[in-house]
Amino acid sequence: MNAQSIGRQFVAEWLGTLMLLVTVIGSGIMAERLAGGNIAIALLGNTIATGAILVVLITVFGPVSGAHFNPAVTLAFAIRKEISPSMALLYILFQIMGAVCGAMLAHFMFEVSLLQISQNVRSGPAQMGSEAVATFGLVMVIFGGIRFRPDAVPWLVGLYITAAYWFTSSTSFANPAVTLARSLTDSFSGIRPVDAPGFIISQLVAAMIATYVLGWLFGNKAEPRS
Amino acid sequence: MNAQSIGRQFVAEWLGTLMLLVTVIGSGIMAERLAGGNIAIALLGNTIATGAILVVLITVFGPVSGAHFNPAVTLAFAIRKEISPSMALLYILFQIMGAVCGAMLAHFMFEVSLLQISQNVRSGPAQMGSEAVATFGLVMVIFGGIRFRPDAVPWLVGLYITAAYWFTSSTSFANPAVTLARSLTDSFSGIRPVDAPGFIISQLVAAMIATYVLGWLFGNKAEPRS
Amino acid sequence: MNAQSIGRQFVAEWLGTLMLLVTVIGSGIMAERLAGGNIAIALLGNTIATGAILVVLITVFGPVSGAHFNPAVTLAFAIRKEISPSMALLYILFQIMGAVCGAMLAHFMFEVSLLQISQNVRSGPAQMGSEAVATFGLVMVIFGGIRFRPDAVPWLVGLYITAAYWFTSSTSFANPAVTLARSLTDSFSGIRPVDAPGFIISQLVAAMIATYVLGWLFGNKAEPRS
Amino acid sequence: MNAQSIGRQFVAEWLGTLMLLVTVIGSGIMAERLAGGNIAIALLGNTIATGAILVVLITVFGPVSGAHFNPAVTLAFAIRKEISPSMALLYILFQIMGAVCGAMLAHFMFEVSLLQISQNVRSGPAQMGSEAVATFGLVMVIFGGIRFRPDAVPWLVGLYITAAYWFTSSTSFANPAVTLARSLTDSFSGIRPVDAPGFIISQLVAAMIATYVLGWLFGNKAEPRS
Repeated sequence: MNAQSIGRQFVAEWLGTLMLLVTVIGSGIMAERLAGGNIAIALLGNTIATGAILVVLITVFGPVSGAHFNPAVTLAFAIRKEISPSMALLYILFQIMGAVCGAMLAHFMFEVSLLQISQNVRSGPAQMGSEAVATFGLVMVIFGGIRFRPDAVPWLVGLYITAAYWFTSSTSFANPAVTLARSLTDSFSGIRPVDAPGFIISQLVAAMIATYVLGWLFGNKAEPRS
Repeated sequence: MNAQSIGRQFVAEWLGTLMLLVTVIGSGIMAERLAGGNIAIALLGNTIATGAILVVLITVFGPVSGAHFNPAVTLAFAIRKEISPSMALLYILFQIMGAVCGAMLAHFMFEVSLLQISQNVRSGPAQMGSEAVATFGLVMVIFGGIRFRPDAVPWLVGLYITAAYWFTSSTSFANPAVTLARSLTDSFSGIRPVDAPGFIISQLVAAMIATYVLGWLFGNKAEPRS
Repeated sequence: MNAQSIGRQFVAEWLGTLMLLVTVIGSGIMAERLAGGNIAIALLGNTIATGAILVVLITVFGPVSGAHFNPAVTLAFAIRKEISPSMALLYILFQIMGAVCGAMLAHFMFEVSLLQISQNVRSGPAQMGSEAVATFGLVMVIFGGIRFRPDAVPWLVGLYITAAYWFTSSTSFANPAVTLARSLTDSFSGIRPVDAPGFIISQLVAAMIATYVLGWLFGNKAEPRS
Repeated sequence: MNAQSIGRQFVAEWLGTLMLLVTVIGSGIMAERLAGGNIAIALLGNTIATGAILVVLITVFGPVSGAHFNPAVTLAFAIRKEISPSMALLYILFQIMGAVCGAMLAHFMFEVSLLQISQNVRSGPAQMGSEAVATFGLVMVIFGGIRFRPDAVPWLVGLYITAAYWFTSSTSFANPAVTLARSLTDSFSGIRPVDAPGFIISQLVAAMIATYVLGWLFGNKAEPRS
């Protein structure tokens, strides 16, 4: 692996996370503007856009960087020793930068202030529990998919998030970089900065637990494949 | 097959059925809360989430346990002698436990009482007939898929249930474990406990009939493949 | 090909067309009942159910009978000499019987009179032109799919009808057996019996034209492959 | 390559673009008529139909002409020297003719004047920026798909546009031929002729930039593969 291919990995993580946030936040603004107060319809638009873009982004960036776009997923791969700690930190850095750039680009496209602070309250054990369930499930889907149907992973993640938007009270952020960037938008998909740490801790803890449990369940241990 | 792999099968049936119920009941609560009284929109959200999670769960747990998540399906495989009676009973036990845990986890995530009793009336020959049709169709899809396109089974089941939520007056439970657990939620997707036995009998009878009819139609008899 | 396998073909055409009509009419009734007058939402439910079931039915019955479920499609295959005239007539007979049974089964499941006559006016050149466009497109999708991606045909047909429900003013019946059966339901998806012949003629003429045009475009002539 | 196969290519570009516009404009009219003023529901119908037809059209016409249906995509392939300049110009000519014919056919099917001029204002840097982002993403998806999963390209494009309808304020035309034809419909999906050049310039510039950037990112340069 040479310098150029490493550079491509970082660009892929940055650009993929950027496009993910453009979609999550942009479609949230679009949906809220058009739905005339019917939040279920707004969430349908938000869901369909997010699920669809995940299939696309994971397919085209998977072969370049693995298409993590998510510090919790990078953490899970680090626990399995499939990515080195230093690369993992760099991945997470580029994911966060991509997520923040994506929020700003969505704001630009919808003609609102680039820099915003969310007022959306998302707190309490039900919401934090939702994030833990959502992230556990995400890791389950990724590792189960990699184990049994690697070609289907983009679809599995897209469909899983489609479902998870509806089966959790938090609408399943399940991603610390996404959570951070969504604290910077005062729109449909936002979360108050003060509520973000609770979400992020839930996500990271669930990702760790999931890595061990599912390593056993799917028959590949969370150990180096030397 | 050793003890550990049998243990994995039971965990897969338990966890898969749990996640299925989390989705069915959780997305039902979410959809009902947001839809502002427009039940068609609520059912759309409920449908999309359920169809999507079925594709995901069957893909990742299929290679572990067969991904039945459904006593009627386990019964059909038992009739075909593809699972032994004792294993079938254990499968059904874990499915029911998973379903009930899933209902409770959905309740926790949406901050409602963990233990509830449904008030939703679902009775009469039209509803019971709906369950028979829905379950016949489900077995048809599973056996037709296994026979001709095994890699597509997760998709076929997800898409079939997507359609069946709309083409039956009962919204197609088609699953005794799901029926039982849905009697324990007083929300959108519930069914009164008193109505559950009628549903379950319809489902099991239809699964038995379907196993014989479709064994003939798809050219693999409902007999041991010795 | 022995008697039993021919018997299976007819049962597959009958059962597949039955399930198709159960879905089209059943989901139409469900959607109309729940949508509270918002027809766009009703059509969304009707669309999603129909598109999904087509993928399923064509996948599981395709290897048994070819999964025509549609006299216009059977006509196209007959023109290409891929089915004999006498088999084609029997196919069409079983399709019509399946369609009518499907309408009645849908009515039973939704507790309305089994035998009904539609009052839905669907006439005029815009609607008949819509049916011609819809059927031309359907044959295009089937022959293009068979030529280049046979494994994808179930998906292509399901997705095509999903689109065609929305891009025609008639909501794309594109199927004489479906048209006939939908004249026998006084619900969302119905068509007045007096309007059915115009639809059916448009469909059959378009199927014939499409067979020749697309045989050329996709590079396989509408001639016997001796 | 003989004269007949070249003729087929042009017919495929013409017919595919025609069907695309039939769907975009037809489903827009249908959705607007039925949605009773709720624009989010109208956009849902418009989105689902457009995404679905793209999967279908790219699958069946891809092997004939490459299924560009889009001058910006043809430009990108010309920059990569995968299509000659003269063929590219002819492709674009047939795309534009198909798009205009598609708009008129949609108008015929919905019984409105065949020739119309849109009054829909779509201008300003946010909308033009949206078109640049949308087109950059489209080229990213096409080249990433061709590079890593050529069989999935139809799905990727359909899903990408599904998302892009919601994540841009312009609803992602991302196609100069589509933009031109949509200036000729005074309905949901229209754009004022005076606003079209801004959209088209954004699309072409973004396609050019994307070709170079993504050629590097996906590891195939925008140069002849001699």
